Amino acid sequence: MLNDLAPQTRRSLLTMIGKAGGAAAMYQAMTALGHAAETQFSGPPKLSGARKGASVLVLGAGLAGMLSAYELMKAGYNVQILEFQDRTGGRNWTLRGGDTVTEIGGATQTVGFAPGNYLNPGPWRIPYHHQTVLHYCQELGVELEPFVQLNNNAFIHNSKAFGGKPQRHRELVVDFQGHVAELMGKAINQGSLDTAVSKEDKEKLLVAMREWGALDKNMKFDTSLHVSDRRGYDRAPGGGVNGAPTPSQINSLSDTLDSHVWQQISFYLEYVMQQTMFQPKGGMGKIGEAFAKQVGHLIRLNTRVTKITQNAKGVAAEWTDAKTGQTGTAAADFMVCTIPASVLAQIPVQVSDAKQAAIKALPYAASVKVGLEMKSRFWESKYKIYGGHSFTDQAMSLISYPSSGFFNKGPAVLLGAYAFGLGAYMLAGMTPEKRIEAALKQGSVFHPEEYQSEYLNGVSMAWSRQPWIMGCCAEWTEETRAKHYQNLASIDGRIVLAGEHVSYYGCWQEGAVASALDAVTRLHSRALSA
Amino acid sequence: MLNDLAPQTRRSLLTMIGKAGGAAAMYQAMTALGHAAETQFSGPPKLSGARKGASVLVLGAGLAGMLSAYELMKAGYNVQILEFQDRTGGRNWTLRGGDTVTEIGGATQTVGFAPGNYLNPGPWRIPYHHQTVLHYCQELGVELEPFVQLNNNAFIHNSKAFGGKPQRHRELVVDFQGHVAELMGKAINQGSLDTAVSKEDKEKLLVAMREWGALDKNMKFDTSLHVSDRRGYDRAPGGGVNGAPTPSQINSLSDTLDSHVWQQISFYLEYVMQQTMFQPKGGMGKIGEAFAKQVGHLIRLNTRVTKITQNAKGVAAEWTDAKTGQTGTAAADFMVCTIPASVLAQIPVQVSDAKQAAIKALPYAASVKVGLEMKSRFWESKYKIYGGHSFTDQAMSLISYPSSGFFNKGPAVLLGAYAFGLGAYMLAGMTPEKRIEAALKQGSVFHPEEYQSEYLNGVSMAWSRQPWIMGCCAEWTEETRAKHYQNLASIDGRIVLAGEHVSYYGCWQEGAVASALDAVTRLHSRALSA
Repeated sequence: MLNDLAPQTRRSLLTMIGKAGGAAAMYQAMTALGHAAETQFSGPPKLSGARKGASVLVLGAGLAGMLSAYELMKAGYNVQILEFQDRTGGRNWTLRGGDTVTEIGGATQTVGFAPGNYLNPGPWRIPYHHQTVLHYCQELGVELEPFVQLNNNAFIHNSKAFGGKPQRHRELVVDFQGHVAELMGKAINQGSLDTAVSKEDKEKLLVAMREWGALDKNMKFDTSLHVSDRRGYDRAPGGGVNGAPTPSQINSLSDTLDSHVWQQISFYLEYVMQQTMFQPKGGMGKIGEAFAKQVGHLIRLNTRVTKITQNAKGVAAEWTDAKTGQTGTAAADFMVCTIPASVLAQIPVQVSDAKQAAIKALPYAASVKVGLEMKSRFWESKYKIYGGHSFTDQAMSLISYPSSGFFNKGPAVLLGAYAFGLGAYMLAGMTPEKRIEAALKQGSVFHPEEYQSEYLNGVSMAWSRQPWIMGCCAEWTEETRAKHYQNLASIDGRIVLAGEHVSYYGCWQEGAVASALDAVTRLHSRALSA
Repeated sequence: MLNDLAPQTRRSLLTMIGKAGGAAAMYQAMTALGHAAETQFSGPPKLSGARKGASVLVLGAGLAGMLSAYELMKAGYNVQILEFQDRTGGRNWTLRGGDTVTEIGGATQTVGFAPGNYLNPGPWRIPYHHQTVLHYCQELGVELEPFVQLNNNAFIHNSKAFGGKPQRHRELVVDFQGHVAELMGKAINQGSLDTAVSKEDKEKLLVAMREWGALDKNMKFDTSLHVSDRRGYDRAPGGGVNGAPTPSQINSLSDTLDSHVWQQISFYLEYVMQQTMFQPKGGMGKIGEAFAKQVGHLIRLNTRVTKITQNAKGVAAEWTDAKTGQTGTAAADFMVCTIPASVLAQIPVQVSDAKQAAIKALPYAASVKVGLEMKSRFWESKYKIYGGHSFTDQAMSLISYPSSGFFNKGPAVLLGAYAFGLGAYMLAGMTPEKRIEAALKQGSVFHPEEYQSEYLNGVSMAWSRQPWIMGCCAEWTEETRAKHYQNLASIDGRIVLAGEHVSYYGCWQEGAVASALDAVTRLHSRALSA
C-alpha cells in the first residue's frame, strides 16, 4: 500500500504517476493515500474549443441545467435553455415575504414572512464533502456560513417514551452509552466474549467502556455529578457561594431504549449528515440566483416542452408557452435534458427503448416542508436551543431551528415540519392551511405554550403537488440501479440527461451538479468527435 | 411532580408560585419543569439604590473585575479599578498583528499575523449554556458567530495506533460503534445478559445494536457500502456514468481500540464541550473591549497592588506604578478583589486565616497555546476540514482550525497547540521559538507537507509564564472544594473575591462573570445593611 511509504517516497511516486498516467492515475493514487476520498470532484471541467457555430439546447433551468449551460457557454457553444416555470433555480429555491407558491389543484399561498426571513423549501444544507457545490459557490461569489447540524441541547420526542415528554438529546445519548457500556462490561467480566476478543483487547475494552460510558469505579452507570458533567445537571454549576451543581437523574435502560435515541446518533453519523455543514447566507436560492446571473440571458421561461426529437444532424424540442399559448420549436446540434424523470416520462422523447424504460422506472419521493414564522426566537431565549433539530416520531418528523440570525429579536422562521414517506403523503393530502395546523399541533410537543402565543404565519411546500416535478427527488433502489442507471446516464445519439436523478448523490444538489459536469464533459467529447 | 401536570395547570401553578414566592420560588419551580436547568443565570442583578457617596475599589480589570465595576457603577457606587497590566481584559485576550507578549524571564514576542487574523490565547469558545456571558455579549453589542466544535472529518492521531498515521474521526467512531454493537449482539444472543436485561429490552437492544452499529443482517460489522454511508467511501459517490461509490475498509477491533477514539466521543459529550458553541466575531477579546468601553474611565493601568487592608470603616490597597515607580494608596468603603489566587497568595491581605488558607490552597493549572499563521487554508482546500479539532496524544494535544473566514484565500491562523498538564510544562519550559518548532514538528503528523511549505510565523502563550497570573486557571479538587470553597467565596468584612476561581465553572469565562454577579449582589446587600 502507498500509505506505508515514507512521505518523500510518496511524493516522488505521485510526481511519477502524474507524469506517466495523467490526471486519472494521479487521482487514483491520491485516493489510496487518503487525500481525495471525500469527493470525485477535482475541479471544473475546463472545456474549450467547441466547433464554430455548434449549439446545445438545455432543458430545465435548475442547477444541473444552468451549470451545463454555463460550462458549455464558456467552451464556446451557442446555448439556449427552456424552462417550464416562471422562475429559475428549480428545487434550489428560497421563499421570502411576498413570494407565491401554487400547487396542483390550484391552491396558492403567498408568503407572509418579514423582510430578511426565509424558508428553503428544498435543499437547505451543504455537507463539507459536496465539493462541486462548494466550488461553484466560490466561483460565483455565493457567501457561505456554517449550518448547525448537531445540537446536543435539542429535543428527541417519541410518543411511546417518557409519557410523550421530549427529552434533551444530550441526556438520552449519555444514558444510552452508559447503559450499553455497563452491560458490555458485565458481559466481558463474565467471560462471555472470551472466544471473540483477545485478552489484551478485553482489557482495553473495559477501559473504553468505563470512560465512554461515564461508569463509576464499579463499572456501574448511575446518577452522579460525573455523569451530569455530560448529560447536564439538575441545577447547573454557577459562581460564588451557591455555585455548587446538583446531579440530574439518569433514565433507566428501558426508558432510554423506548426513545430510540440510537436512530439520532446514527443520523448524525451518516456521511451526508456529518459536520461541518454550510448554507448560503440569505437562503439556498442564492446559488440558483448566482447561476442565473451568468446564464439568465440564455433562458426562455414559461416554456413547456411537449416533444423531444433527434436525427443524425441535430435535436429539437417542441414547446408551448404556458402563459400565451404560443408554440414553437427549438433546435440545436445537441441537447442536455435536465427535466425530472417524473415529468420526462410523460413527454414523447426520441431515445432508445432502454433509456425510455429507465426514465419510466424512476418513482419520485414525496416530501413536505412547512415554514412557521414566530414572533420571537423563544427556542433560543427560553429553551437555549441555537440551531439544530428536534426529532419526533410524528408525521412531521422534525422541526429545525435557524442557523443564522442567532440572538436577534423580532420574528424568525422555524422549519416546522420536514416529512417523508407516509408522513409526507398525509401532509400533502391536506390543504396548505391544514398542513400548517398539523405542523403547529405536532410541533407543540416541543414548545407547547409558544406554539400558541408566538405563531404569526406559515407556508408549506408539498413537493408531490408541484406540477413541474411532482415529487421531491428520484428514488433509486439497488435493483433499479443495476437495471437502469447506465441506460439513463449514457449519451443517446445527441441527447444526454443530467440532474440529481442521474447521480449516486440522489436528492442532493451535489448529485445534480456532479451529473451536469459529467454530462457536459461527455457531450463535448462526443461533439468534437462527431 | 410538576412535570406530570397538564400545561394549563402548570401555567396557573407557575403564576401562583410567582406571585406568592417571588423569583427564587419561580426559578425552582421552572427547574422542576425542565425549563431552566441549563444555567443558574436568570438575568442581570438589577442592583440599585447605593447609599450616597458609597464607594467600591475593584482589583483587576479582567471580565470579573470589569463586570463588577459595571454593575456597581449602575447601582450608584463610586468605583475605581486597579489593573496590574498595561491592558484590560485579563485572560479575555485576542492577539493580533503588532501585539506583543512578554513573559517571565523577559522573552518578548511580537505577533506577525496579517490584518484580520488573530489568536485567542485564552478563552476561545462559549457553550450554549454559558448564559451569563451570552447575555452580556448581547447587552454590550458583541457580535457572535458559531464556533465549529465537532468536525467528523478532522483527524485523530495516536502514536501507538495505525503506525502513527492519523485517521478521520468519522471512520474511527463508526468502527468503534460497529465493533461494540457486534460484540454486544453476541453477548445478548448467547444469553449472557439474561439476568441483567428483560426479554423485551433484549429484543429492543438487538434492534438498537444493529442500527446503531450499522451491522448487517447477521449482526456482523463488516466492510460494505452500508457502513461506508457513515464512515465515508474509498471512492465517493458522484454523478453520471462513473458515479458509483466503492466502500472503504473498516478497521479491526484491535486497531480501533488502539486509537482510544472513545476519548474523543466522550470529549464531545462533555456538557461544556457540546454544540452549539459561539465565538465573538473578530476574537474573544471583543468582550473585554466592550466592557472596557463601559468602565475604561474607572481603570488605572500598570498598577501593582502590594498590600490590602481593611478596618471597620473601609478598605485600602497600596500600589506601585509598574512604569514610573510611583506609589500610592487607593481607599474605598468596599472591595471586590479579582486578583488570581496565584498572585493574591503573595500579597499581604487583611482577611481571616480561613480565607488566607483558601487563597493559598489553590494551585493554578499550566496551559500553553501556539498560534501558527499559514500561507493558505490548506486544511480546507486539500483536507476538506472546516473548523473543529484534530487530536493527538503528543504534548501539543490538538490543533484547531478556524471557525471564521471559511473558504477565504490568503494567510490564516491555526491553533497549533493547546497543551495541558505535562505537555504544557514541557512547552512552557522552552523558548517561544522552540515552542513553535515543537508545534510545527508535532502538528506535521496531520499535514506533513503543508507544515513545511505553508508556515509563515507564530506566537505562543505559556500561561505559567505570565507574571500577572502564573497559570491558566485555578485547579480545584473535591477535597479543596470541601475545605476551602465557602471560605474563599464568603464576604470577609468589607472584602469579597470574584473570578473563575470563585465558581463551579472554573477555567471558563462563565465562572468569572457568574461569580462577579454573585459577589456584587452580596456586597450590595452587605453595603445597604452596614
